Parts: sequence; structure tokens; C-alpha cells
Amino acid sequence: MNYVVAVDVGGTDIKGALVDSDFNVIATKNIRTPKADTTGVETVRAIKAIVTEFAQHQTIAAVGLVVPGTLDEPTGTSRWAGNLQWNNLPIRNLLAEAINMPVAFSHDVRTAAVAEMRSGAAKDAQNAIFIPVGTGIAAALIIDGEIRSAEGFAGEIGHVDVRGKYSCVCGKTGCLEAASSTLAISKAYESQSGKTGVTTEEIYKLVVAGDPIAIHVWNDATSAMARACEVLITILAPEVIVFGGGLSNAGETFLKPIREYLDSSLTFQRKPRLEIAHYKSQAGAIGCAMLAFDLVKAGK
Amino acid sequence: MNYVVAVDVGGTDIKGALVDSDFNVIATKNIRTPKADTTGVETVRAIKAIVTEFAQHQTIAAVGLVVPGTLDEPTGTSRWAGNLQWNNLPIRNLLAEAINMPVAFSHDVRTAAVAEMRSGAAKDAQNAIFIPVGTGIAAALIIDGEIRSAEGFAGEIGHVDVRGKYSCVCGKTGCLEAASSTLAISKAYESQSGKTGVTTEEIYKLVVAGDPIAIHVWNDATSAMARACEVLITILAPEVIVFGGGLSNAGETFLKPIREYLDSSLTFQRKPRLEIAHYKSQAGAIGCAMLAFDLVKAGK
Repeated sequence: MNYVVAVDVGGTDIKGALVDSDFNVIATKNIRTPKADTTGVETVRAIKAIVTEFAQHQTIAAVGLVVPGTLDEPTGTSRWAGNLQWNNLPIRNLLAEAINMPVAFSHDVRTAAVAEMRSGAAKDAQNAIFIPVGTGIAAALIIDGEIRSAEGFAGEIGHVDVRGKYSCVCGKTGCLEAASSTLAISKAYESQSGKTGVTTEEIYKLVVAGDPIAIHVWNDATSAMARACEVLITILAPEVIVFGGGLSNAGETFLKPIREYLDSSLTFQRKPRLEIAHYKSQAGAIGCAMLAFDLVKAGK
Repeated sequence: MNYVVAVDVGGTDIKGALVDSDFNVIATKNIRTPKADTTGVETVRAIKAIVTEFAQHQTIAAVGLVVPGTLDEPTGTSRWAGNLQWNNLPIRNLLAEAINMPVAFSHDVRTAAVAEMRSGAAKDAQNAIFIPVGTGIAAALIIDGEIRSAEGFAGEIGHVDVRGKYSCVCGKTGCLEAASSTLAISKAYESQSGKTGVTTEEIYKLVVAGDPIAIHVWNDATSAMARACEVLITILAPEVIVFGGGLSNAGETFLKPIREYLDSSLTFQRKPRLEIAHYKSQAGAIGCAMLAFDLVKAGK
């Protein structure tokens, strides 16, 4: 049996997964993402620790590395990742040299979209949008049956103005990401409730339980996401919008207010289906493993 | 020499052009668009009058018909055109029966983009956006070298919220079209100046001359367009944005404030070139003629 390690460098955690060639996640290991690691040295060390641990028990054929922000896939370079404070960092080669293994490299969001497009909630759609909601928010655009990224620059829906009131990591105010990311939801709940260390999972459970502060924060987050969906629908007219990432575990608690907003707001536009990612928060790991196995099959 | 007639049904005028096979516009004839012609009967009659007049002097091989709004190209149907009050109108077949000639059918905006993409300002760009500004505003999206329309629904940038203050024909408030269309600019100037029947051409000349009301109206219109460009850039990352339609005749008076806004507002995004359509306000007619000649060459 062949194995690969899928590594997703997020704003909060580096998420490692050992995946077999049937795309089963066999084991996972997370490490906190080093803060402000502008050279990538600490990040590479953390990833190497994950791969080394998995390699003690299994033979690893390749690593799939996915990162957020804008990137140049052919050269394996992160052009800009606000949450990581990376600028023009050749992270793929840094990692490949450190672990001496083939490394597939892609964007966290587009990688998860690969899994949803090949065998998940966007299967068979010619036009679809995949939006994982985590510490950051970006979209993968499936247009005429392919993921289109305009050389890695497209899909930054997290930084579209949705008339929000919060300041964003990008320097603007009103961005989707500043209202609807898991980080933004936690921060808003903490500042309004006076509590600390509250996760979004706890917050959407409080929403279901009727907690008024949680409901207020949730309405802000879901209405900002609904307005962002409206923009995407008006410009790109997808058949389906698929939500992934940590927040997708909220399921209908997340989808229902967005669907209700769109039902009352869309006029001439084509209404898309709204769905939770088939692979839920594992879409990234599975898509990443698919790309790593693509590399193994290509004999690289 | 072969000739075709390019017909562009706009919210204000039906613009007819006699075009030769070198894509020279030989003659033009405009007729006011019939108001609220929900059955299309008056519109077909007006187009037939234009074609008949050109046919007195030249042999017409085909007609190219382009319309605004959302449409179904394979069946030649206008699904929705707010300014024309059309709903599910099979306008191509209605016209083809009335004039007994092959009719190429497309969207006004995407047709003009054909001309700019094949031999105009978007030539050689893999990712570009074409925005003609007339009575209405929509965008043609050139993504990975092709015009992508998501079955005719995509590109309705005119109905994206740009924090505007005006009510829109679509029923919402804040849309780009309600702030930046030629109709919106004329209406805003008229309501603020108390004058009537002022064209956008007169208004941008007043801007250059320093008229304070014209400048105020112009700033509203160009800043709304700049915000819409910012949304498109953040989501689609085009290499170039090309402006066409009536307003493009304003040239740098139109481009400069948009460029200045984007220079100060964009952060991580890729900055596109901003250009006026190579074919200026004739891009639609020339693209439409290209499609009609495609039909003639295909022997249909």
C-alpha cells in the first residue's frame, strides 16, 4: 500500500494527514503554526517533524503541501499570505530539500476544491464555487469544468467589501473575512461576551441553544457570507456553492440563514444550490493527497 | 463583397450597422427602442426596417443580433432584460422569420468582447474583463482565453452592490448600474442641476471645463465603477479591464479617477491595465458582424 502525507499550513495550525491510495485518512497530526515565520524555517521544521513521525510506521511516497494566500504554483512560491506574513517565499523547495521527497504544491482552497470536484459536492457541475471557511476565507472558482485561478491570483473573496464593520488583515474595512472567518466569529463573540478562548464550534452550539450574543454574532457572520455569495452569483452564476473548512461542521445552522437571505434577495440571477463539502473539513487533506498521488503516478 | 447587418438592441436605441467582410462599418442607422415591447413585435418591426433599408443598396448575407440581459444563446431566447421588459422572449426566431435571413444571436456585452479579444485591447490577454458602459452595465469575462458566461447568466456586474445610494431597475439599491450607467449619470446631473436632456457626452465635457455639479456626479459614477473593478480584480484577477460603450468616449477623463482609486486601494491584488476599447463604441457592432460572418462561413 502506498501512502502520502497531506500538509495544510493554515493561519492557526499546520494540519498533517497520512492518507492511503484509497484516500482514507489513516492518521492526523496537528502542530500550531509558527507565528510570523517570514523565512519559513520554523514552518519547514514543523512539517518535517510531522512527516518523520508518520514515516516511522509507513513508507511515504510523496508529500502534498498546500498553503493559503496568492501563490505561483509552477515555482512553488507563496507570493503573499497575510495570516502567515509570507512574501515571495519559495516554500515548496525549502520543504523538498529538508525532507528529500517529492512535494506537490497547491493552494489550500483550490486543493480542497479538487476533492469536491472529482468526487464530492461539486461533482458534475460545470460552474461551481468552493468556499472553505477557516481562519481565512478564499474561494476556488470552477468555471466551465476547470478550477480557474488566473495564475494564482483569483478567488480572494475574503477581501471583497460586504458592507461589514470590522477591520481586516489586508488593511481594509468591511471585508468578508473580517466578519465571517472562524477567527472573526470567535473575536466578535469574545469581545461582546467578555469570555475568552471560545471556539466557533462552541459558538454555533450556543446559537442552536438560543444564546442571544452568539445569535447576534452568527447573524453578522452569515449575512456577510450571504452578501458575498450574492456577489459571486451575480458575477459568476455557479450551479452550486460548496462550503468547507471548520465552519462547515455547523451544517444547516450555517446554510439556512444564507439560503433565506438569497431567496429574498436574488431577483434575475440563477439560484445555486448551497451545500456543505462532502469531505467536510477533510476536503483539503483529501484533495492534497490526490495531488500528491498524481505526482507519484507521474513518476516525479 | 459580402455584407452583414449588425443590430444592437439597447435600452435607448436599436443601433444598426452595415459591415463589410473587412469589418469596416459602411453605414449606420439607429431607431429608438420601442418602450415596454414585451412581445418583441415592435422591436422586430424596427429591426426589419433597418435591414430593409440597407438591403436596397447591398446584398446582405446575414444579420447579427445582440441583446442585453441574461439569455439562452442556443435557443435564441432573451431570458430577462430589465431595461427592455423582456422575459423569456424567443427574439432570434421572431426576427429570422420576419426577415427570412440567418441570424447570429449573442449578448451585447460578450459580442463586443469578441471584437476586443480577437483584435482589440484584450488581444493576447488570457484573463480580461470587458465592461461597456451604456444604458445598462454588464461585463464579459475572459477567463483562461475564452469568454465564459455560465450558460448566459454570468457577468452581471451592473447589479453588484458598490455602496451606492441610487435605486436600480433590478429592484435593489446600491448597484453599480444605478450609479455609473449613462442613464444614471444623466439622471443624477439633471436632478442636481435642474436642467433636462443633458447627455453624458455633454456632462464629461462639463467635467473637463470644471463645472462643479458635473464633477460631483462624475466622481460618484467613477468611484462606483472603481469599487466594482476592485471586486472583479479581487475575485478574477484580470490582466486588463477594457471599457467600451458610450461612456468610453470620455477616455482618460473616465479612466484616470478609476486608476487613482485602484492605485490607493488595492493591496495584495494583481493590478490590471485599464484601457478604452480599441473599437470604442463600435466594438459591439464589429463583434456582432464577426459572429454574423462566422455564420456565413459555416454555411448556415
